[in-house]
Amino acid sequence: MYLATVIGTVVSTSKDERLVGFKLLLTQQLNPDGTPAEEPVKISVDTVGAGVGEQVIVAGGSSARAAAGYPDAPIDSAVVGIVDTVEVEV
Amino acid sequence: MYLATVIGTVVSTSKDERLVGFKLLLTQQLNPDGTPAEEPVKISVDTVGAGVGEQVIVAGGSSARAAAGYPDAPIDSAVVGIVDTVEVEV
Amino acid sequence: MYLATVIGTVVSTSKDERLVGFKLLLTQQLNPDGTPAEEPVKISVDTVGAGVGEQVIVAGGSSARAAAGYPDAPIDSAVVGIVDTVEVEV
Amino acid sequence: MYLATVIGTVVSTSKDERLVGFKLLLTQQLNPDGTPAEEPVKISVDTVGAGVGEQVIVAGGSSARAAAGYPDAPIDSAVVGIVDTVEVEV
Amino acid sequence: MYLATVIGTVVSTSKDERLVGFKLLLTQQLNPDGTPAEEPVKISVDTVGAGVGEQVIVAGGSSARAAAGYPDAPIDSAVVGIVDTVEVEV
Repeated sequence: MYLATVIGTVVSTSKDERLVGFKLLLTQQLNPDGTPAEEPVKISVDTVGAGVGEQVIVAGGSSARAAAGYPDAPIDSAVVGIVDTVEVEV
Repeated sequence: MYLATVIGTVVSTSKDERLVGFKLLLTQQLNPDGTPAEEPVKISVDTVGAGVGEQVIVAGGSSARAAAGYPDAPIDSAVVGIVDTVEVEV
Repeated sequence: MYLATVIGTVVSTSKDERLVGFKLLLTQQLNPDGTPAEEPVKISVDTVGAGVGEQVIVAGGSSARAAAGYPDAPIDSAVVGIVDTVEVEV
Repeated sequence: MYLATVIGTVVSTSKDERLVGFKLLLTQQLNPDGTPAEEPVKISVDTVGAGVGEQVIVAGGSSARAAAGYPDAPIDSAVVGIVDTVEVEV
Repeated sequence: MYLATVIGTVVSTSKDERLVGFKLLLTQQLNPDGTPAEEPVKISVDTVGAGVGEQVIVAGGSSARAAAGYPDAPIDSAVVGIVDTVEVEV
């Protein structure tokens, strides 16, 4: 999993029917200090009620399908938690 | 999943028989502002009727097989949606 | 798997219920000489009682779910060992 | 999947027995214009009779095992098609 | 899979019990000409009796678990062959 911030949303009418009902969030991976990591933005399904501007935990690969609860859905990225605090040892 | 644009197609006569019948699209990952991301171009099977020039949602890994509906097909990238709008929080 | 050092922790109250009870560690991949590798920091569940400052072994993907013992949990990164020694051939 | 060119072969006598009988091809990922992509060379099993110098389609991850027809073989990259033509929209 | 050289070993006493009995090798991915590829060093379980200094074939992801013969072990990288020769077309 990794830290990310929700920077926007994607709307798609014509899509796989197993994606219907999921909010599609644009997620930008973050470094622990809150700056953007050098990774391209992902589209992640929301499973925890996250909103734009929030810091979240994103899971990828088959773990994202597990998060969504649909083992046969074409989902490879999911928001699985909203971050309260990040503590980094100096 | 990630944002991409369909930039072309690939034709292959001699291929795994489980790929027969799928349109093979060249997909270039995009940043949310529509510029190309620094990721190499993929070959993605089309599952939603996408065409060259359209902005799409691409799923990867075992999720792509789920999209194609063939759990034992050698497919690791699939177009799973056509994008209507992308909204990025400024 | 790869070498990493635990640099901090993440607290998330609102998260997938299958993540409840796992300590969420910030893990920075290392080169064999102990310097940070050019890979973004991950959030890994702890399965071996690792603490901040320790050198650890991190497994990713579906292997991380195996480590956690929950094959259907949304976990894609896990600490699976604490490093005693690293020997590099000069 | 991605475009690649077969640049060579690897011979290994002492290997996992489930790899016996597969030709091991060195595959260099390509950009759509035929130049090498900035991705390291892979070792891919041949499932379509591809030879050195040919442009091919490579599948990765668990899809490669599906291509090889051995769901429990240690195969994570496979050549699944030989490319006839690539058409890129200008 | 990819070409790699075994550059060292890792010792871990406190680790997942399903890793007990496996030699943990530090593997550096190589370009076909034998120079190190720009990929971080992995920790791979040995399944073929490889030693430090040897050129090997490394498999990743769920294929590595297949190599180790433990489908539920937290293993995502494994040495699956020792390289005899690499032939690159000039």
